[in-house]
Amino acid sequence: MSVKERLIYLPLGGAGEIGMNCYVYGYGPEGEERLIVVDLGVTFPDMDTTPGVDLIMPDVSWLEANAERIEAIFITHAHEDHVGALGHLWPGLRAPVYARPFTGAIAKMKMEEAGQPADSVRIVGPHPAATEAGPFRVQFLPVSHSIPESAALVIDTPAGRIVHTADFKLDGSPVVGEPFDPELWHAIAREGDGVRALVCDSTNVFSPQPGRSEAGLVGPITELLKGQEGMVVATTFASNIARLKTLAEAGRDAGRSVCLLGRAMKRMLTAAVEAGIVSDFPSLVQPEEAADVPRGNLMLIVTGSQGERRAASAQLSRGKYLGLEMKAGDLFLFSSKTIPGNERGVIRVMNAFSEMGVDIVDDRGGLYHVSGHANRPDLEAVHDLMRPKILIPMHGEHRHLREHVKLGLAKGIASEIATNGMMLDITGDEPAVVEYVEAGRTYLDGSTLLGAMDGVVRDRIRMALNGHVLVTILLDEDDQPLGDAWVDLKGLAETTRSGASLADEIESELTEFLENAGPKVITNDDKIEEAVKRIVRQVTMEEIGKKPEVTVVVSRLAVE
Amino acid sequence: MSVKERLIYLPLGGAGEIGMNCYVYGYGPEGEERLIVVDLGVTFPDMDTTPGVDLIMPDVSWLEANAERIEAIFITHAHEDHVGALGHLWPGLRAPVYARPFTGAIAKMKMEEAGQPADSVRIVGPHPAATEAGPFRVQFLPVSHSIPESAALVIDTPAGRIVHTADFKLDGSPVVGEPFDPELWHAIAREGDGVRALVCDSTNVFSPQPGRSEAGLVGPITELLKGQEGMVVATTFASNIARLKTLAEAGRDAGRSVCLLGRAMKRMLTAAVEAGIVSDFPSLVQPEEAADVPRGNLMLIVTGSQGERRAASAQLSRGKYLGLEMKAGDLFLFSSKTIPGNERGVIRVMNAFSEMGVDIVDDRGGLYHVSGHANRPDLEAVHDLMRPKILIPMHGEHRHLREHVKLGLAKGIASEIATNGMMLDITGDEPAVVEYVEAGRTYLDGSTLLGAMDGVVRDRIRMALNGHVLVTILLDEDDQPLGDAWVDLKGLAETTRSGASLADEIESELTEFLENAGPKVITNDDKIEEAVKRIVRQVTMEEIGKKPEVTVVVSRLAVE
Repeated sequence: MSVKERLIYLPLGGAGEIGMNCYVYGYGPEGEERLIVVDLGVTFPDMDTTPGVDLIMPDVSWLEANAERIEAIFITHAHEDHVGALGHLWPGLRAPVYARPFTGAIAKMKMEEAGQPADSVRIVGPHPAATEAGPFRVQFLPVSHSIPESAALVIDTPAGRIVHTADFKLDGSPVVGEPFDPELWHAIAREGDGVRALVCDSTNVFSPQPGRSEAGLVGPITELLKGQEGMVVATTFASNIARLKTLAEAGRDAGRSVCLLGRAMKRMLTAAVEAGIVSDFPSLVQPEEAADVPRGNLMLIVTGSQGERRAASAQLSRGKYLGLEMKAGDLFLFSSKTIPGNERGVIRVMNAFSEMGVDIVDDRGGLYHVSGHANRPDLEAVHDLMRPKILIPMHGEHRHLREHVKLGLAKGIASEIATNGMMLDITGDEPAVVEYVEAGRTYLDGSTLLGAMDGVVRDRIRMALNGHVLVTILLDEDDQPLGDAWVDLKGLAETTRSGASLADEIESELTEFLENAGPKVITNDDKIEEAVKRIVRQVTMEEIGKKPEVTVVVSRLAVE
Repeated sequence: MSVKERLIYLPLGGAGEIGMNCYVYGYGPEGEERLIVVDLGVTFPDMDTTPGVDLIMPDVSWLEANAERIEAIFITHAHEDHVGALGHLWPGLRAPVYARPFTGAIAKMKMEEAGQPADSVRIVGPHPAATEAGPFRVQFLPVSHSIPESAALVIDTPAGRIVHTADFKLDGSPVVGEPFDPELWHAIAREGDGVRALVCDSTNVFSPQPGRSEAGLVGPITELLKGQEGMVVATTFASNIARLKTLAEAGRDAGRSVCLLGRAMKRMLTAAVEAGIVSDFPSLVQPEEAADVPRGNLMLIVTGSQGERRAASAQLSRGKYLGLEMKAGDLFLFSSKTIPGNERGVIRVMNAFSEMGVDIVDDRGGLYHVSGHANRPDLEAVHDLMRPKILIPMHGEHRHLREHVKLGLAKGIASEIATNGMMLDITGDEPAVVEYVEAGRTYLDGSTLLGAMDGVVRDRIRMALNGHVLVTILLDEDDQPLGDAWVDLKGLAETTRSGASLADEIESELTEFLENAGPKVITNDDKIEEAVKRIVRQVTMEEIGKKPEVTVVVSRLAVE
């Protein structure tokens, strides 16, 4: 009796959120499938849910427990939400990593920064080159996006062909990198038995208009620059090499010297030049030279399109940066869109520039930015082109995935929502959920990894919301209090509304408690702690209306 | 020699931000001007800058120091950012409060909730009724907005007439409340010497299209509802009585029973009915009755358009609420816009509904919501109608005020940006900055007031970002350490990447330090504290890459 083999799909990140992409495919007998991993990305923390955290990554415990089954890791493109976790998570997976040259250069940097072997990253060419990985044969299919070399993966398995789109848009003239090639995609869809499953980007499923081309921006941006008399500063994503080129060309065509500011931007451009992706980038001046260029002849291209506090745009909004400074009459251009959740930071930068008298142009009119993702009609065009048996939306919040499934069902394609941790069997005509795998989040916090459920970050949020009271109690050899309880406050009002000292009020209540505590309590640290916490919270609530976190330290002179 | 009298304008909140409005006008000899206060509003905290804070209010220390000069407080309308701080700040000002009936009812609630005398709030009628307040004569001039009874103030002084628009839009058919009356405004602009200063709402200065009328919504919303088979739930701002009526009428016209959920919404509607503002509101069913209505015949109107965690919309997104529950095939309508900064909360609610299979309609198409503020062409229309000598933009972030000033200057009006704390002399042809007054923020934190600069909230943010280490050290009568240093961690990883206990690592370093500390250090609490903090930060940085907050408690048995 032969064991039935199956083809599985398991998202561990990126399905039910936009960020930290990580998708797993498997083929083989149930529970023994050989695996490949597509992308290992990060998502970014915020004060509301992850204060103090440096990066958020998928919880790959399931992969680690099955590490010996992993044949390979494929990185589709060099955006942080696809490659940012590679160095941090690789030690638990230890499989070879495949990527195209520019993506591979960034992937190697990620490995090196994390102290992992960069030579685990192997550089491969695009379709028709193919990588064999156990039962899988994988080709990188070039596609346009907001970073060079983005590639869909054509994954052939004994159960049929999967096309994993990665992030993409349909751009026939993307300025840098390969245009979307409908004929090639058509050919791939028609080879053999066609496409069993299309696993497809969902980011812009709610955008009703067809996407626009990167090539349409240089004209309007050049026009905008020609009308300016002061310095012009433009920001966009550091990795959007095509946009950097568009901005730099517009600057040059408007008669300006162009200077790049921001480490990430320089790093990306260097990697792109080294990978041979961009060869005719306009010449640049260095920041120290830029300071000598008349303002009306200068253009800066800077990092920080999302209002990040340490990026060049925010630095300029606070004053001088690398000898350069914005002044009244200058122009600041956001050649970018604000990612939902980043509004506060972007608005902070805008207002700081406004106070300097700097004019701001953003994407409101749609003239100076285009998205890197396929819009709703583009997604439909790809469905039609690929004619898959099964559609599985990815790279989206739940609402995006759900809308994308509706689109597929309307075309008669078997479509299914699979969010992080849901394992689908896609061997048959309809995808079927066969297992739920633990798939949470892992935090990089300083130099260490934390589980999202460890409680560490929860304690930080509680201290931030409620403040922290520390109580030190000293008991002598006879378990009698030595002096008064000592109270330290952090993140709480020191004085009550009546002008009394909150610490004094708490201390006097605690002293009374200790004086009257019976032997059963006073000899038991847990009971003391419990009572002290209750008293501290009660007094603090009465006096200032807060219910703080409390830490109690009981020191005893008695030898146990 | 007679002392020259002057007319001054001093914003203490709302100029340089959208929120916590508070504007002061004064007339009299320099430094002895008699004062009136327009609005006492709040703004809402966020985790990024104000974790744990309940409300943010203007710092009115300057007013408190000059309380005997205050003739009156005027409240233009009942939005939280105009009346929310009244009860909390009134004790320092103690002047009579004037408002129209609905606004006054809300103002009285604010006073009562804060334990202040509600009878300090005096109800006044609209223009031509007038209130004398020292050298000021003030009329409430009805204007359309997203809450009933919003009023501009016509402020007559010996130096001329000021029109303080408050929040407004130009709506000739606002569904509830008075339409904008251009003839009345025209007449007011032409009386006597005309308008010396127009102090004007700037919120929508970047919106290029003329504003649309509230009355245009009922048709599209009714059409939307008629096409639905499941339950429909709609959300909007609780205080937008016109929108509540529009939604309820659309529900009724689509054959549905309508039920209101959310305390704030019921309170607002009750106040509006009691003030006689709305008399023909469609009949409502109670939540307990609603549960028996077939889903296809039911409409809920709920609080929580901004994704607030405790509001009805968020409760429904998490499951049953007051016996009601959303299901696949239901519709959720955001008849509202998301205020910048609230995106994360709104998106969280949207995705939770998506997981339930609930369809979501938001304001993307512009069919189901109109703004309550005048757009750019509307502002220009008001400039033309009022023909002021001076324009002072208010109710805006710096970028809005700056753009509004540009608009005024382009028309040849003397226009000036005045942000919180900048006192303008507006007696002459051009406004002139004459003083900078301390104008920060005051926090309501639990039941107590904190200054924004007190450091309390800064400590909370630091604990949230860095974690908190508590060290307890016990020294005997001879200043020798009694036992080891004791370390408690809060908000920090307990184990290092190598698997060791972080607390143990710190304790052993501290023990070594204490054993080797010389007498100069060991007898000096400050020196011990300094050294301990340094060691804790160093070890924690080495072990887990974090630089924590540290609190050190040194207990000595020695009698001093």
